[in-house]
Amino acid sequence: MAEGPLSFAVEARDAHTMARAGTLSTKRGDIETPVYMPVGTQGALRNLSPAQVVEAGTQIILANTYHLALRPGESLIAKAGGIHTFSGYTLPILTDSGGFQVFSLPKAQVGPDGVTFRYEVDGRAVFLSPERSIEIQEALGADIAMVFDECIPYPCPHQRALEALERTTAWEERCKIHHRRADQALFGIVQGGVFPDLRKRSAREIVALDFDGYAIGGLSVGEGRQILSDVLDVTVPELPEDRPRYLMGVGLPEDLFEAVERGVDMFDCVIPTRHARGGIVYTFQGRLRIQNARYRRDMYPVDTTCGCYTCRLFSRAYLRHLYLIRESLGSTLAAIHNLHFFHELMRRMRQAIMDGTFREYKRAFLRTYLKQSPS
Amino acid sequence: MAEGPLSFAVEARDAHTMARAGTLSTKRGDIETPVYMPVGTQGALRNLSPAQVVEAGTQIILANTYHLALRPGESLIAKAGGIHTFSGYTLPILTDSGGFQVFSLPKAQVGPDGVTFRYEVDGRAVFLSPERSIEIQEALGADIAMVFDECIPYPCPHQRALEALERTTAWEERCKIHHRRADQALFGIVQGGVFPDLRKRSAREIVALDFDGYAIGGLSVGEGRQILSDVLDVTVPELPEDRPRYLMGVGLPEDLFEAVERGVDMFDCVIPTRHARGGIVYTFQGRLRIQNARYRRDMYPVDTTCGCYTCRLFSRAYLRHLYLIRESLGSTLAAIHNLHFFHELMRRMRQAIMDGTFREYKRAFLRTYLKQSPS
Repeated sequence: MAEGPLSFAVEARDAHTMARAGTLSTKRGDIETPVYMPVGTQGALRNLSPAQVVEAGTQIILANTYHLALRPGESLIAKAGGIHTFSGYTLPILTDSGGFQVFSLPKAQVGPDGVTFRYEVDGRAVFLSPERSIEIQEALGADIAMVFDECIPYPCPHQRALEALERTTAWEERCKIHHRRADQALFGIVQGGVFPDLRKRSAREIVALDFDGYAIGGLSVGEGRQILSDVLDVTVPELPEDRPRYLMGVGLPEDLFEAVERGVDMFDCVIPTRHARGGIVYTFQGRLRIQNARYRRDMYPVDTTCGCYTCRLFSRAYLRHLYLIRESLGSTLAAIHNLHFFHELMRRMRQAIMDGTFREYKRAFLRTYLKQSPS
Repeated sequence: MAEGPLSFAVEARDAHTMARAGTLSTKRGDIETPVYMPVGTQGALRNLSPAQVVEAGTQIILANTYHLALRPGESLIAKAGGIHTFSGYTLPILTDSGGFQVFSLPKAQVGPDGVTFRYEVDGRAVFLSPERSIEIQEALGADIAMVFDECIPYPCPHQRALEALERTTAWEERCKIHHRRADQALFGIVQGGVFPDLRKRSAREIVALDFDGYAIGGLSVGEGRQILSDVLDVTVPELPEDRPRYLMGVGLPEDLFEAVERGVDMFDCVIPTRHARGGIVYTFQGRLRIQNARYRRDMYPVDTTCGCYTCRLFSRAYLRHLYLIRESLGSTLAAIHNLHFFHELMRRMRQAIMDGTFREYKRAFLRTYLKQSPS
């Protein structure tokens, strides 16, 4: 691995849980784990400039293959010199495979070769396969590419989950064979729905293919925190100690603690930016809905203990004003704060792991956070 | 003046025109003139953080009394410590008087005391007068406040313009009497429509009231460049040499040259940010409409000679992509560039005045700018 596009080292392990603190090294910089990856769906984080994203403490971002391949198209991005140059980011970037988006479309047709679907914007028919996904991701030039997997809905019967698992293993092998860029890491994805036997089997098959890292897919789709935790309990122990583990699409602070406690290193979710657009801001004392009338004359920052750009300069009353006049700067400032919050949360978890106090920190955080200052 | 809230010094005069380069000193910093003031209507420049506005080279911004008094209300802003603290700006701020907005409303009722109108957002009846405008502006705490004047439509008969002129002089005297904040400068406004006799008379009456600076109002309302220039020709010579001169609501590069040439020092306009929202970006080679299909694969920055954040990091193709996906970062990046363009334009005019080459610079600029690279 040290010779490859990525290396991963576990720096510390919590004595009482499976939580671990690590460093993921890429040619674009080191990433301290556990890490939260904000999502720049179409080559931009909504309402944020790259400078603002970096200033908020972001170490790596995610971009969506599905969206970028369709608009503006990966050949244009390749012509620009890749996704980093095109979108103005010098941070490491991970691209998903497009699978999750494609399988979310109502009329996707799945065959052994791949998936045919209609692009929601202009209705044209598009085909996506393991080979095509890898081809696109190599053109985009992300630091970490993801295999193309079959995503199933929740709930999903055992038989259907099994078929998808088998197809996923076959597809991931094709991804691995087709992947050529030596400067790009490739992560496998474990599927298997909510079934312990299938998760174990999928993990073993995927690990046997030998990827640079392992993602756990198909969760955070409505199954709830208990099932999420149960699936992690059976899946993570199947994954090698020396590779990074990535829980896709998670998430909320409560879920992050459960997953970090079970040994997951990487996360991505749209909520810091999406919730910002809705006026929801995260603090260590709970979430606030900034449009609420109670903040009309509130001259405190969103979080009095926060050091982000938004909290250094602006009051809740000013943010509320921006939402009322529908000024996008409101979403920008809330997103800056939310990104900072999630990065700071991961940093504190990491420190607790180093200090051997992860469980205590989790308890203390949740006690304050779930008290929910009335928003 | 040196003891007051503002001082103004002319640093250089062009030998062949009335153009002048000066320094306007406020307690929040020195402003080099001629200067372009971007407009933050409701306590924010659209799509821009204060840090981005400053980084683009902005020296002073304008905020709208009408909008802020109605939402969130000047008492809230005063509670926050004033408009600077509330909106996160440490730059000097100028507030208009609300007159222009109020007289633009279809059902405004004008009497000798002031104007009654219905607030467009919630329909409530509001009264604005010289005294009330000053009261609001003192609560907002801008560095420079403007008198409350009567604005007339264009075209407007001589008799109507004369009546408005007389009312304006009376109102400005009431503003001057009512104004108490020693740390806030107050500018008078010359009216008189497009009539040379009225402009001269208004200028003399307003100058006799002795303000910290003098604005020329009621222009840039559809009269065209020739009439604008003619009005400046008769108005500016009536204004004292030792006070700053401000042409309200201008504007476009071509108009700025005409006005600077005639001795105007300060300008404000919404076009850098408003046009950015429409995808229009300004360059020294002309304006571009960034959504245009010709930029689809254009990997050059908006302006290859520009040093702004947008031009340092992003291509025309990327900006076009952001507009196509309706991502507000597109407006943000275009606004950053446009602000930088207008500030750089004023800086180059200033340098030309210092060098005694203003006319040559104007000719050279317009030759390139009006060639209009086909957008």
